[in-house]
Amino acid sequence: MPQGYMPSPPLHMPSPPVHMPSPQGYIPSPQGYIPSPPAESSESREGASPGTRLPHVASNSAKTRFGQIALHHTLVNRRAPTQKPFSVRFNGSFRGRQTRPTPFHGQLSNIIGIPTSKRTQEQAASLNIPLSTLDSHPHIDLAIDGADEVDPNLDLVKGRGGALLREKMVEAASSSFIVVADDSKLVSGLGGSGLAMPVEVVQFCWKYNLVRLQGLFKELGCEAKLRLDGSEKPYVTDNGNYIVDLYFQNPIKDGFGAGKEISALEGVVEHGLFLGMATSVIIAGKTGVEIMTK
Amino acid sequence: MPQGYMPSPPLHMPSPPVHMPSPQGYIPSPQGYIPSPPAESSESREGASPGTRLPHVASNSAKTRFGQIALHHTLVNRRAPTQKPFSVRFNGSFRGRQTRPTPFHGQLSNIIGIPTSKRTQEQAASLNIPLSTLDSHPHIDLAIDGADEVDPNLDLVKGRGGALLREKMVEAASSSFIVVADDSKLVSGLGGSGLAMPVEVVQFCWKYNLVRLQGLFKELGCEAKLRLDGSEKPYVTDNGNYIVDLYFQNPIKDGFGAGKEISALEGVVEHGLFLGMATSVIIAGKTGVEIMTK
Repeated sequence: MPQGYMPSPPLHMPSPPVHMPSPQGYIPSPQGYIPSPPAESSESREGASPGTRLPHVASNSAKTRFGQIALHHTLVNRRAPTQKPFSVRFNGSFRGRQTRPTPFHGQLSNIIGIPTSKRTQEQAASLNIPLSTLDSHPHIDLAIDGADEVDPNLDLVKGRGGALLREKMVEAASSSFIVVADDSKLVSGLGGSGLAMPVEVVQFCWKYNLVRLQGLFKELGCEAKLRLDGSEKPYVTDNGNYIVDLYFQNPIKDGFGAGKEISALEGVVEHGLFLGMATSVIIAGKTGVEIMTK
Repeated sequence: MPQGYMPSPPLHMPSPPVHMPSPQGYIPSPQGYIPSPPAESSESREGASPGTRLPHVASNSAKTRFGQIALHHTLVNRRAPTQKPFSVRFNGSFRGRQTRPTPFHGQLSNIIGIPTSKRTQEQAASLNIPLSTLDSHPHIDLAIDGADEVDPNLDLVKGRGGALLREKMVEAASSSFIVVADDSKLVSGLGGSGLAMPVEVVQFCWKYNLVRLQGLFKELGCEAKLRLDGSEKPYVTDNGNYIVDLYFQNPIKDGFGAGKEISALEGVVEHGLFLGMATSVIIAGKTGVEIMTK
């Protein structure tokens, strides 16, 4: 449902439920985490409004809160002076309506969001965030998203939320793709968390593909399971497909090779290996915030 | 809906509506078309029943009639003596019920069919052909199907009927894949007919993928169009996806390269290039029947 460009209202984002003292006052930067400048110095940045302050960091809402940091950091430092509409890909939950001004109040005008799930689309629309689609905006400036796993090469496992295909389509179309995660998502090799690596498959003969997927990685002790919903029925993606979750006893050694093998199976629609896509990863840990870049 | 193995009733196939005198009496063989032996000599073949005769050839129902030839040829010559159920993939229309015995009457017991479209499934079931799925029978002995284009390497364009994904899944699982076509389908390079080369895409942001697909082949003068149904609405595949048809002014030079580029686009579910899959192609022309093998 392309809506085209509309003048955007102020973007409201949820408030931090928990404030962590340690990372407060740190700004993500390509050099790692650095102390944030005083609020007054940020006024001089292009596009920053007077009185801007960085949000606090809350580890238990890392995705959303760090998303704000990344968004702020990127927009304030990179926004073109032309005021050309700036397309941003949204994911994750907007938890509840914001009733008071946020740190970004008034800063995020002229922004268009590209949702990657029906749920996000509905939530963003309810917050009056102008939305569009890849059909109307095939080139996206910035994508921000979480990840289920992050390896040292910034390769990712994503899709435990079920929106892997749309996320990959949109994030692949983005000039910058910033991943926001806490350090529990760091792995030495993809699949290393022992949690699900999802593969979206057509419903037709899904069992056949489940067996084939498991067989691809039998040397890694892979177990394949059809994802079920809360009613113990097969989980159906927004695209009408099923998801086969792969669980690895040992991590994948060659992510690109694995991705090719998975994609080569007829009936596989997409897989949750996001390879060579992230331009930087913001990692939150107990000691602070760190930026991983290639 | 796997039905498992059931004792199969006699397989009825439609009678030839038109008899062509010229190819009559010819048997497809790896050496090209050869005169058929007298009926009595075929009795000595393994599995052939007394009185077997080859069907006549009708050029205007090539798919079905040549399918019978290919099926006969393959079954009679290759059938294992173990009487292990022989799985065969069915496609195409079974035009009307057969009310009299066919050339294969009584020969095709112990066969299980794997349909590749809902339509074929319904038609085969109405003819009491035992059916199964890849889930229950992941290894198929024989697939027989038509093709929209056949190049000199036996690479194909398929899917103008809309069932490309299921066809490719099933045919890729088949030990033998025999293509049956008339000589109007021969091309020097894939896409060379100027007719549609279909690509199945998810509905999400189909226009974005249409533009990307056309862009991949702009040097070949490619035009991409969303396939519409009879009501001018988007055609929806059995898997709930759309089809983007690509029309080429000049044929594709590197089919495998093109296939990889198409498959790499997120949101592409399958494409109609069937590469390295056909084990032989039966071509009917005015001068007779010819077998192409690699």
